[in-house]
Amino acid sequence: MKKREYHIVINRSRDAQDIWKDVPAPIRGKLIRTFRIKLFQNKDLLARIITSDSKKIYKEAVGEVFNAIEMCEFGQGLSRQLQGLTIPSEKQDHSLKETWHPLGLVGVITAFNFPCAVWSWNHVLSIICGNSVIWKPSPRGINVARKCKELWDQSILEFLTYNKVRHTQGNRFHLQDLLQIIEGDNEEAEWMAEDVRIQLLSATGSTEMGKSLATKVAARLGRGLYELSGNNAIVIAPTANIDLAIKAVVASATATSGQRCTTVRRLLIQTSIYEKVLSRLIEAYKAITIGDPMDNKNMMGPLIDIAAVNKMHEVLSRCRGKGYIIHGGEIKGDCCVTPAIVEVKEQCELVRMETFAPILYTMKYIGLDNAIRMNNIVKQGLTSSIFTDSVQEAEWFASATGSDCGMVNINVGTHGAEIGGAFGGEKETGGGREMGSDSWKQYMRRTTTNINYGNEVI
Amino acid sequence: MKKREYHIVINRSRDAQDIWKDVPAPIRGKLIRTFRIKLFQNKDLLARIITSDSKKIYKEAVGEVFNAIEMCEFGQGLSRQLQGLTIPSEKQDHSLKETWHPLGLVGVITAFNFPCAVWSWNHVLSIICGNSVIWKPSPRGINVARKCKELWDQSILEFLTYNKVRHTQGNRFHLQDLLQIIEGDNEEAEWMAEDVRIQLLSATGSTEMGKSLATKVAARLGRGLYELSGNNAIVIAPTANIDLAIKAVVASATATSGQRCTTVRRLLIQTSIYEKVLSRLIEAYKAITIGDPMDNKNMMGPLIDIAAVNKMHEVLSRCRGKGYIIHGGEIKGDCCVTPAIVEVKEQCELVRMETFAPILYTMKYIGLDNAIRMNNIVKQGLTSSIFTDSVQEAEWFASATGSDCGMVNINVGTHGAEIGGAFGGEKETGGGREMGSDSWKQYMRRTTTNINYGNEVI
Amino acid sequence: MKKREYHIVINRSRDAQDIWKDVPAPIRGKLIRTFRIKLFQNKDLLARIITSDSKKIYKEAVGEVFNAIEMCEFGQGLSRQLQGLTIPSEKQDHSLKETWHPLGLVGVITAFNFPCAVWSWNHVLSIICGNSVIWKPSPRGINVARKCKELWDQSILEFLTYNKVRHTQGNRFHLQDLLQIIEGDNEEAEWMAEDVRIQLLSATGSTEMGKSLATKVAARLGRGLYELSGNNAIVIAPTANIDLAIKAVVASATATSGQRCTTVRRLLIQTSIYEKVLSRLIEAYKAITIGDPMDNKNMMGPLIDIAAVNKMHEVLSRCRGKGYIIHGGEIKGDCCVTPAIVEVKEQCELVRMETFAPILYTMKYIGLDNAIRMNNIVKQGLTSSIFTDSVQEAEWFASATGSDCGMVNINVGTHGAEIGGAFGGEKETGGGREMGSDSWKQYMRRTTTNINYGNEVI
Amino acid sequence: MKKREYHIVINRSRDAQDIWKDVPAPIRGKLIRTFRIKLFQNKDLLARIITSDSKKIYKEAVGEVFNAIEMCEFGQGLSRQLQGLTIPSEKQDHSLKETWHPLGLVGVITAFNFPCAVWSWNHVLSIICGNSVIWKPSPRGINVARKCKELWDQSILEFLTYNKVRHTQGNRFHLQDLLQIIEGDNEEAEWMAEDVRIQLLSATGSTEMGKSLATKVAARLGRGLYELSGNNAIVIAPTANIDLAIKAVVASATATSGQRCTTVRRLLIQTSIYEKVLSRLIEAYKAITIGDPMDNKNMMGPLIDIAAVNKMHEVLSRCRGKGYIIHGGEIKGDCCVTPAIVEVKEQCELVRMETFAPILYTMKYIGLDNAIRMNNIVKQGLTSSIFTDSVQEAEWFASATGSDCGMVNINVGTHGAEIGGAFGGEKETGGGREMGSDSWKQYMRRTTTNINYGNEVI
Repeated sequence: MKKREYHIVINRSRDAQDIWKDVPAPIRGKLIRTFRIKLFQNKDLLARIITSDSKKIYKEAVGEVFNAIEMCEFGQGLSRQLQGLTIPSEKQDHSLKETWHPLGLVGVITAFNFPCAVWSWNHVLSIICGNSVIWKPSPRGINVARKCKELWDQSILEFLTYNKVRHTQGNRFHLQDLLQIIEGDNEEAEWMAEDVRIQLLSATGSTEMGKSLATKVAARLGRGLYELSGNNAIVIAPTANIDLAIKAVVASATATSGQRCTTVRRLLIQTSIYEKVLSRLIEAYKAITIGDPMDNKNMMGPLIDIAAVNKMHEVLSRCRGKGYIIHGGEIKGDCCVTPAIVEVKEQCELVRMETFAPILYTMKYIGLDNAIRMNNIVKQGLTSSIFTDSVQEAEWFASATGSDCGMVNINVGTHGAEIGGAFGGEKETGGGREMGSDSWKQYMRRTTTNINYGNEVI
Repeated sequence: MKKREYHIVINRSRDAQDIWKDVPAPIRGKLIRTFRIKLFQNKDLLARIITSDSKKIYKEAVGEVFNAIEMCEFGQGLSRQLQGLTIPSEKQDHSLKETWHPLGLVGVITAFNFPCAVWSWNHVLSIICGNSVIWKPSPRGINVARKCKELWDQSILEFLTYNKVRHTQGNRFHLQDLLQIIEGDNEEAEWMAEDVRIQLLSATGSTEMGKSLATKVAARLGRGLYELSGNNAIVIAPTANIDLAIKAVVASATATSGQRCTTVRRLLIQTSIYEKVLSRLIEAYKAITIGDPMDNKNMMGPLIDIAAVNKMHEVLSRCRGKGYIIHGGEIKGDCCVTPAIVEVKEQCELVRMETFAPILYTMKYIGLDNAIRMNNIVKQGLTSSIFTDSVQEAEWFASATGSDCGMVNINVGTHGAEIGGAFGGEKETGGGREMGSDSWKQYMRRTTTNINYGNEVI
Repeated sequence: MKKREYHIVINRSRDAQDIWKDVPAPIRGKLIRTFRIKLFQNKDLLARIITSDSKKIYKEAVGEVFNAIEMCEFGQGLSRQLQGLTIPSEKQDHSLKETWHPLGLVGVITAFNFPCAVWSWNHVLSIICGNSVIWKPSPRGINVARKCKELWDQSILEFLTYNKVRHTQGNRFHLQDLLQIIEGDNEEAEWMAEDVRIQLLSATGSTEMGKSLATKVAARLGRGLYELSGNNAIVIAPTANIDLAIKAVVASATATSGQRCTTVRRLLIQTSIYEKVLSRLIEAYKAITIGDPMDNKNMMGPLIDIAAVNKMHEVLSRCRGKGYIIHGGEIKGDCCVTPAIVEVKEQCELVRMETFAPILYTMKYIGLDNAIRMNNIVKQGLTSSIFTDSVQEAEWFASATGSDCGMVNINVGTHGAEIGGAFGGEKETGGGREMGSDSWKQYMRRTTTNINYGNEVI
Repeated sequence: MKKREYHIVINRSRDAQDIWKDVPAPIRGKLIRTFRIKLFQNKDLLARIITSDSKKIYKEAVGEVFNAIEMCEFGQGLSRQLQGLTIPSEKQDHSLKETWHPLGLVGVITAFNFPCAVWSWNHVLSIICGNSVIWKPSPRGINVARKCKELWDQSILEFLTYNKVRHTQGNRFHLQDLLQIIEGDNEEAEWMAEDVRIQLLSATGSTEMGKSLATKVAARLGRGLYELSGNNAIVIAPTANIDLAIKAVVASATATSGQRCTTVRRLLIQTSIYEKVLSRLIEAYKAITIGDPMDNKNMMGPLIDIAAVNKMHEVLSRCRGKGYIIHGGEIKGDCCVTPAIVEVKEQCELVRMETFAPILYTMKYIGLDNAIRMNNIVKQGLTSSIFTDSVQEAEWFASATGSDCGMVNINVGTHGAEIGGAFGGEKETGGGREMGSDSWKQYMRRTTTNINYGNEVI
């Protein structure tokens, strides 16, 4: 995109937001309700485009659309729940309250692996909160973005048929600008990071990219919401339901061919059950079918591109060089690979970095204190799981002295998350939170109002 | 401070926090209760040191100590209220909750004008939340910091007499390291900003400093909480209680000799009452007594240093050059100045920048839409006030289309704030919030926990 | 209904709730989403039945259906927001939280004037919260209830097509029993009040009925939620926007022919504007068209029955006997009456009782303290309004020393309320709250859970 | 007390509350802070009076005073946290909020077993919330009440030395009336229940008493908060830490000689560990020393009176008659008894009723579903515990399909509770909640305020 076009996009975004911020939030919810219906009506087509762009299997693509649909349902409910506090004033004849107001323009940068869902989280919260959205999708998710924009534009027109909006002055197309797409790559992302007119930049991607953008946003004292890399571990304790654990590990390690920020990359198995779990896991991996993502019999599709395959190949070679035992990890052509299990002896630099591919490192631990240290040693802090039936272990792992990740799952795999809870992580994962709980507050500004209704200065 | 000493400070801070994060929050509250008693017992002495360091009048210094005392009372209550949510899970046999855990090390950088209170806000929240604090006060507030540290160390010993703390292993002095002072200036501040071991950097000061530190913190994906410059306006509307308004404007413009981030710098007066308000204000200014800050008859002390006096002088000269009418602003020796009222015609660059001195720019507005635009035109967004008895005006000013500041006061001056409400501002003010409401969340990390207590992967 | 049939209803309700309480709340939300679509599809038909049963004008009936639709939208959002707290424990190695669980069976007793909306508030909250509903509508709203039940049964079948529910064991009709209708009158209401199997009785109606039922519920330590009579006042202050006030008063006094619990019955006008407001009001009343409620040109339909007409007639006669000046109040046949304005000199027993008819008593006040006392003197405490542009007056009226009602409106009439806010009142109005805010908590039970994950008794 | 005197008490309470409701809540907190200091200074004396009145051992009495002290600390913090919500309005140019206001007069009826703590919970919340308190202690706790009143009166005078209160008009004694003692018994309790001037009646005692008072309160549509009988069970599962469980059971069964509402009365032991747990328990019971409650070597004091001894004797006789094996339960003179363990085969009517004495019924269960049914079968619903290290069991027991009690403890005994959590129970326990979470809302009234700041009726 040319810089000149970019400025037009931003200006139109401001115009749209100026109208939108004045619309009562429950009415904003009705727009999201309309958009939800559009998504539902187009769910199969949209899923096909997702598979085409991201190469994830069709079943996962459908799941991604339903995630966006549920996010709309959540958002509509939220439109009446953007609640601040009334607070007892310490002063005679004073009242004190806080109100949450629209923030302005929200820049959303998304990655190839979730070309629809992650945008939808940001978009729904932004729109409900009275903001406009400038979306720069991954170049490899561009067709998904175009389709979403098309459905959005239709939703606006339908919404305006039933709802009056002040200041639209007959121009029904203004509000379509609440969502605009920036087709571009790093350069455009940097424009957004540096642009003081964008109040919040929400970026999903690598830690390297995150640091670069965050520095630019901070230099202008803007707000950032970062969802960056993960290097997630699952702990399997002696009291674990092994059947359950195996199913969850397989899903968390191989969904989207291991290219999720929530993919499990490290498996910490208590020493007494290590051999049993490992052999069960190797067996389970053998049953995984790989190939054309549109073919429903396949459980894994290809990696996103040949560079990803090469990267995986290189990492496995280095593992081999270190003498680690590797199960799987064969290249099958057309960017397809079989998922790999690598038995490691320590968390070397390979284990501690995030390789965006289906490589699962397994290792042993003795006591839970040991497992917690191993879990926390990496720079990332997105998610973590423990499989255990012990109350003591589960509560400790979730406590202040347990896992240092943003998400701590008990008998639940690392991948996936509930709409109602906050999604995001600590340390180099970037600290942002999306979806549930009070994540919406990042998309608004808070006003503390103190009213004196007496006649004295106090 | 030498870099080697700095590293020792940080390491001791980590050791202390490792112990502290495991202490139940309500017990942490008891330490703050003890510290409150120490502050109260030493309030007069501490106030004298504040006056000596900051040159604010003694009465204000006492007020500052009481602010810290009230913050302790608030913090103790908060120690039982660091509440997360239990959330209904969308999955069969699952439970979902979020818990707030200690964050780690909190770096606190404070300015000369509030050498005790602003630190106390950060310190109390940090300690209650299970963190340790590394405090770099302004070099001009160093004696206050030393005294606070002394009272803190006493509090720790007293606290440990009544409360057992796991892992202290007989070393009662470990916990004193929960507060450590960094004596230094910009260089030390930069070390802190760059230090990945400091999870949160909370900095109060100029926007220039804030941008520089924020960039460094972002480059390591750390957390920042910035309370930077303000350029606050008060709107006086036709229905205002003029007596009340005059008193509040005088206090907001001249407290701490105009050297507060919340000082009112711009006065927007509705055109029909402009002359009346201005003459009342000029009259009120004449009654202000200036001089030795320990002398109770004085209402204003000196500026912090000769550089501040020169800066004020320079700005007033440029105003004069622009033909603006100036009331007051005389230099009286010993860094004392009389507060100045400058009648301006437009918000030129002088008006839009923050001069840390008692200069108040007055200007006219016609309709409230006009006043809101004038209020919002500056880069800073800390606080703002309107004096009006009109419901329509008050509510509009506090609404999404009103003031864009973090704080919006109705018939209340800009300076000062209640403990219970969130304190902080938008835009170049930096976006952070301290004190009340849910500001404490910035001092903690959130864990989303999803528990499967059934036998199925869902 | 025979007692034997009643017991069958209760037993089926328990069976249905046993299944339902185990369904995750966000899934429960999907049932309400389905029901919302059914309501929308049948909105015109349902509105016609409402008009037929309650005699309210068709436009109001459509509004009532939309209120139920919006309640469903609110409820669906709420299904992910039934949030309790995680609380910092005071004990080492302990965690503390509260969770909200389904309550059980909810009895809902509704009145003739809102045959659909009030039930929908209770029903939506009950279902979202995991309860079953036993609904005893007014005998004069029975056709509405039957239609709602029919739409409900359809919704259940549709819901089960897309969602699996544990324990339904193939019996898709079980869940239809989540709503059952009790056709009956006072006797059936008493059965419900005395029935220990009904965990919550939510009753809307007269204070006399409320006291009778509440006593029975309390005798078994059951829970009650009462929405009883109102005797609501509007205060018109000198700074009021008179045009706005007149429109709001007319609507609040004459909607549903004055047969709402939120109908304004008392008008307190500041003495200096009394004559002006009164004459404007008399004029406005003259423009009100009355007659067939299905005829869109009519603004008021008939009273519910001849008894209501007689009651109104009797009260007006007694007013006449006291020498009060009466405007309007003529009987037009077919239960139609013109709305009456009665100028009174004091709040005699006639003014203080709730006559369920369009009689508006007007009186003067001097100072706001006086108006507040006049507002609060009645036994009921549902809602109240003030029309003023004064911040001081508005805030005082809404403060702890202002109106003692559950709802306090500023420049808003008494009738109607927002979905998002809590609806209900104090004193003899009964204290219950429906719809928004945290009203849902009355429909759930709270569990405080304290977990020790260490090895010590503390 | 004579009825005439009673009316004077009520009138003085109203006068005091009229002043108090106008005091900002954070200032109200300062009074509770002062009262906390008084309690602390008098803790030993007060504990001795508690022991003298209630016959509980001195160590428990000291614990009770500390509970009141902690309640004051909690209450002071709460004084800045009585927060309502600001809610996004659905209407253009409207704002919506809710505020919590003082309720009025709170009647507090307490029982002999906690003559200080239970009152303190109610009193602290009431005072913080802006109410006055009329306290009718048990006749057997009258000396404790008198002492508390004395400390209260001193606190008022000290508080007024530092804080100005509007409308006190120089009469510093008015505010002492915020607490008044009603010396009396059932008759006085009934006066309070029937008195429309008492907005909230909070009663602790037997279910029989509760039903009687609740009926009277309901007849006037007043508010009630009931904390009535408990019949609490502890479940011991195979994975339990037996050492921990035994210690907790002994404490929960014998503290206050089994005369707590939270006393464990039923022990459900999984069949495979029944014999082991029982023999461990019998052994532990033998080590319990009983006698003079002021003698620190005693772990149990006498029962409250000879009637209690006789009642225990009678119940044990009936148990013997049914062929149950009884361990302990011997009468030692001076109202002292050894605690009894009774092995029962089923939950007969003796087991299902609450005998206020140290009798613990033990029984076996097979699966947890069975234990949950056994736990829930009684009419009371106060508290319940499970000792288990199984996540599945713990979470199920605390879930919607688990225990039906207000409190569910995991590896924690039934007696005692944290200040921060809500205390109270379901079913015939009465449904009220005291202490933590949002229990304070029962002591306030909610005002929903909707402000129109535009010019249209919407």
